[in-house]
Amino acid sequence: MQNMFADRMNKTDKSFIREILKVTEQPDVISFAGGLPNPELFPVQEFSEAASKVFQEEGKSALQYATTEGFLPLRECISERYANKAGLKIDPDEILIVNGSQQGIDLVCKVFLNKGDRVLIERPGYLGAIQAISLFEPEFHTIQLAEDGLDIKMLEDELNQHTIPLFYSVPNFQNPSGITYSLEKRKAVAELLKKYSVVLLEDDPYGDLRFFGDMQPPIKLFLGDRGVLMGSFSKITAPGFRLGWVCAVKEIMEKLKIVKQASDLHSNNIAQRIMHQYLLDNDLEEHIEQIRVKYKNQCNLMVSMLEQFCPPEVQFIRPEGGMFLWATLPNGFSSLELFEEAIKKNVAFVPGSAFHLDSMGDNSFRLNFSNSDETKIEEGIKRLSEAIKKLLG
Amino acid sequence: MQNMFADRMNKTDKSFIREILKVTEQPDVISFAGGLPNPELFPVQEFSEAASKVFQEEGKSALQYATTEGFLPLRECISERYANKAGLKIDPDEILIVNGSQQGIDLVCKVFLNKGDRVLIERPGYLGAIQAISLFEPEFHTIQLAEDGLDIKMLEDELNQHTIPLFYSVPNFQNPSGITYSLEKRKAVAELLKKYSVVLLEDDPYGDLRFFGDMQPPIKLFLGDRGVLMGSFSKITAPGFRLGWVCAVKEIMEKLKIVKQASDLHSNNIAQRIMHQYLLDNDLEEHIEQIRVKYKNQCNLMVSMLEQFCPPEVQFIRPEGGMFLWATLPNGFSSLELFEEAIKKNVAFVPGSAFHLDSMGDNSFRLNFSNSDETKIEEGIKRLSEAIKKLLG
Repeated sequence: MQNMFADRMNKTDKSFIREILKVTEQPDVISFAGGLPNPELFPVQEFSEAASKVFQEEGKSALQYATTEGFLPLRECISERYANKAGLKIDPDEILIVNGSQQGIDLVCKVFLNKGDRVLIERPGYLGAIQAISLFEPEFHTIQLAEDGLDIKMLEDELNQHTIPLFYSVPNFQNPSGITYSLEKRKAVAELLKKYSVVLLEDDPYGDLRFFGDMQPPIKLFLGDRGVLMGSFSKITAPGFRLGWVCAVKEIMEKLKIVKQASDLHSNNIAQRIMHQYLLDNDLEEHIEQIRVKYKNQCNLMVSMLEQFCPPEVQFIRPEGGMFLWATLPNGFSSLELFEEAIKKNVAFVPGSAFHLDSMGDNSFRLNFSNSDETKIEEGIKRLSEAIKKLLG
Repeated sequence: MQNMFADRMNKTDKSFIREILKVTEQPDVISFAGGLPNPELFPVQEFSEAASKVFQEEGKSALQYATTEGFLPLRECISERYANKAGLKIDPDEILIVNGSQQGIDLVCKVFLNKGDRVLIERPGYLGAIQAISLFEPEFHTIQLAEDGLDIKMLEDELNQHTIPLFYSVPNFQNPSGITYSLEKRKAVAELLKKYSVVLLEDDPYGDLRFFGDMQPPIKLFLGDRGVLMGSFSKITAPGFRLGWVCAVKEIMEKLKIVKQASDLHSNNIAQRIMHQYLLDNDLEEHIEQIRVKYKNQCNLMVSMLEQFCPPEVQFIRPEGGMFLWATLPNGFSSLELFEEAIKKNVAFVPGSAFHLDSMGDNSFRLNFSNSDETKIEEGIKRLSEAIKKLLG
């Protein structure tokens, strides 16, 4: 039946990653490969109580079809939080509730991308975005990340040479690199995107999980109307609800609502109301502080274990927050080969080539620290260091 | 900013329907325009108890990320039900949980449609499907519905003349017409689609809501591998969860999982587990029987009111089940003009042109009977009949 499928289906297979992730699921393996938040921190009891209230007080309306844009009181909470935390004025009408920010990527592509359009993405780039955007059959152009954010010169060269409708970016504690854009780079990116009329899809699932340093404002603050900003409850409460949001000015929002309605009518009504009730009855900021402290400790432990056990030729970027740490082997060494060695010692990670659209990045790899306890981090990094030593010889 | 949007955004606007639906939301209006299930029948208490159990017994895993294909025990329930009710053998691995069948349409289009491909759809056709499929910039070809299902001669002519990858169909109590395909028509459609290698997207949200006559098997039973069958919990439990499913053979399912993952990773995990717990602890068939009885009574009342008060020149199709009744004015009269008259009397419906991709159908209209109580049906049809009399002169 192969020939019956649409052309876009030819561009979506990177099956070696799926094969790798299967290996990492074996019970003896200590896996730093996933990207899951730590379930020990999920507010189970609080959500349970919120759910009881919702069913008791508004069961019938919570179980009925609802508006495409999402539950207004929930959008109001998100709006208020942007005002309080980032000084960003976003009207509730400029917020669309989506099934996790992954759906936001799909919807934004639907609104902006024609087949063959050029799309900018960071190098290394977020795998989920690469998968979502690939379905729109674009021509990807990648811009290198430095430790303080995007390579501005490279961005300008690209914009100078090509017409580009969309740039996808994760400016805070990027997945996979952990890199955060400096304030200067944010302003520089905004200025260039304005000049060349590019829409920015700014994905910010990790922004609240900062371990040290100052919070940076969203690039949208400097960019204005062409900034489409996404957020998510997945990393600050729990991902099982599939609740994220997209912020955009009214002209773009009108189009987003049309494609959201066509794609699945609206997001889960019950989930939105439970989340809203949870926010009413609990202190979200206090909860986020708990996550921050735990992830920070886990990150610090992973860094100090790497410093202690890993050969000094291996470089890594200490992230200011988030869930990931990026490591780089000396030139000429392959993280896919390292993976083979590591899995023999029952420890796993994601090789860097998974996050690259070209043949680059083969000597880098991603480590997740949010979903492993201290014992696993200690033992896992020891095993990994042994594997690295064996590879480097 | 108009020119920054993708081409597909030019094809999605049928704003007069949205304007119409706004009018129908005014408090004094008796609206037969919507397509909502009756919230009086939602099993609020049962879902509340199921939710408590899920949070208590499996809270952490229910709140975590989950597999793309959906919660296995829930897919097993769906599989068993097909075996028991329709004699259809569908393996749980051949079922994908989606955010309502609306998302199923989007995902199936992603897998099968290139821009400009020809898509077959019934005339009149389901508006939600028209919206979802439109985003893929197809060339729609419509096949007329007769009272016993599709016009087979017209189908064969189309298939003879053109290469067509996909046919979207609602064979049971179709939205908007209420029409059900006879057994003979199901077999004839399957035979033709097989002969011309067309994929059938068979949408069956209403199949369980039969008021009289024998249940008909899905067309997939005769078509086999090229049949993609969708179902939904929205009409048999509640739509607020956004839970539907897509059944397809493994080769197609592999592609569906890729596009589902790219589109939103997976469906709401909590909702899937609550639905599964509900199915474990309650008798779904007994619940459906309650819905059937109530909708049947409402349908019967609407039909008898129409017979009693409406001018005999207006024809209508008595549906065997579902939620909708289709009416047709004499040739030359416009249901848009009728709408103007009706709204003056505070009663509303959806004019037939909303369900047509060409200029046809202007003399027909859709009435919903599931979401109005007896008083409203009696009063509303009286008002509507007055408006019709005024229009016909």
